[in-house]
Amino acid sequence: MRLIDQLANIPLFQGLAQKQYEDLAMILVDQVFQRGENIFNEDDEGVGFYLIISGRVKIFKLSLEGKEQILHIFGPGEPFGEVAVFTGKRFPANAEAMEESRVFFFPRKAFGELIRQDPSLALNMLAVLSHRLRRFSALIENLSLKEVPGRLAAHLLYLSEIKKGAIDLTLEISKNQLAGLLGTIPETLSRILARMGKEGLIKSSGRQIKLLDRKGLEELASGERRLA
Amino acid sequence: MRLIDQLANIPLFQGLAQKQYEDLAMILVDQVFQRGENIFNEDDEGVGFYLIISGRVKIFKLSLEGKEQILHIFGPGEPFGEVAVFTGKRFPANAEAMEESRVFFFPRKAFGELIRQDPSLALNMLAVLSHRLRRFSALIENLSLKEVPGRLAAHLLYLSEIKKGAIDLTLEISKNQLAGLLGTIPETLSRILARMGKEGLIKSSGRQIKLLDRKGLEELASGERRLA
Repeated sequence: MRLIDQLANIPLFQGLAQKQYEDLAMILVDQVFQRGENIFNEDDEGVGFYLIISGRVKIFKLSLEGKEQILHIFGPGEPFGEVAVFTGKRFPANAEAMEESRVFFFPRKAFGELIRQDPSLALNMLAVLSHRLRRFSALIENLSLKEVPGRLAAHLLYLSEIKKGAIDLTLEISKNQLAGLLGTIPETLSRILARMGKEGLIKSSGRQIKLLDRKGLEELASGERRLA
Repeated sequence: MRLIDQLANIPLFQGLAQKQYEDLAMILVDQVFQRGENIFNEDDEGVGFYLIISGRVKIFKLSLEGKEQILHIFGPGEPFGEVAVFTGKRFPANAEAMEESRVFFFPRKAFGELIRQDPSLALNMLAVLSHRLRRFSALIENLSLKEVPGRLAAHLLYLSEIKKGAIDLTLEISKNQLAGLLGTIPETLSRILARMGKEGLIKSSGRQIKLLDRKGLEELASGERRLA
């Protein structure tokens, strides 16, 4: 497959113009790492980011005792190192090929220069990521709506219980933290709170939540009831 | 709250430098729309994108009979219109405030100019979106691992059945399509296939899948068994 076709297959670069693929192909370095070969180390300068064409790469940290803690395993089509590189930071962990892996390396300087010459490249990439993020949010919402409302109801009943049955509750953690705790994202948590409000179960405003229908919340928590 | 603090609270702009918030604050237009007020129409030129500070905005299409089909409802912190604007396209749908809503409007031209002057703004935004996408993928993977392996096993057994019990199967749709069908993302589907291979249930290579343990797949499909 030609370099350009390979780039067009990578989610991060979907929908770019032909000229932009050609520009990217000009600056990338096509590399092959053998199984067990080191790609970069924690605290190395982030001189560029990587895209996996084939194979698998693990991102890991080492404990003081030298024990390996795997943070991610990335496969074909996935970028790695880009968050550090885009923000101009050092790599926060090590990367090593888990099998023979072909990767494209994009030097930070050349990539930054491309964007300076052609800001629409960055805008297109932002559009792709933003669109993907939206699809992912919708999927998380779909997946979350099965279990998260029940977990949230159980959490609210628990908060009420430790406050001796109080109806007026104040969340002691941020909605971001609560979303993480419940296994969803803040956007979906907000929508679930809004739906629970619409169904007369609670009334919420910022971190204040008033329980309006304890029985309904109990049914939600036990799985007997679902949000419409 | 100051404009700059409000910008710093928006996921799309998290972690930017102070100067970048100031630059963004300089180009944005602070607008309030009343309930029911139109923000843009389908086919309008994408002259800029929006961020919701408070309120709710619905994105919808109208059928030939004038029936409204809601595509999204966005709330505080969420951008809208940015995918069209970043790719230089017209708006693909209509936007209307569902309640009194405060939004920041970012003109496309001024935003493109900012990025030309300061490519690191785009790189930082790419890093934020990329990082968020990674967190979202991990969450989807977490949520998917409960049900998707079972659904995939059921799908493979079905494919085998319509091929008269064949063991060697060829997927007739792409992995992207299959992921969508199963309610997950391609990255997670790949990892599930790899895990199923590791557990000796199947052997897969591209679109070729060989069933190795029909009983195990049946247990997975029925929920009696889970992937390790």
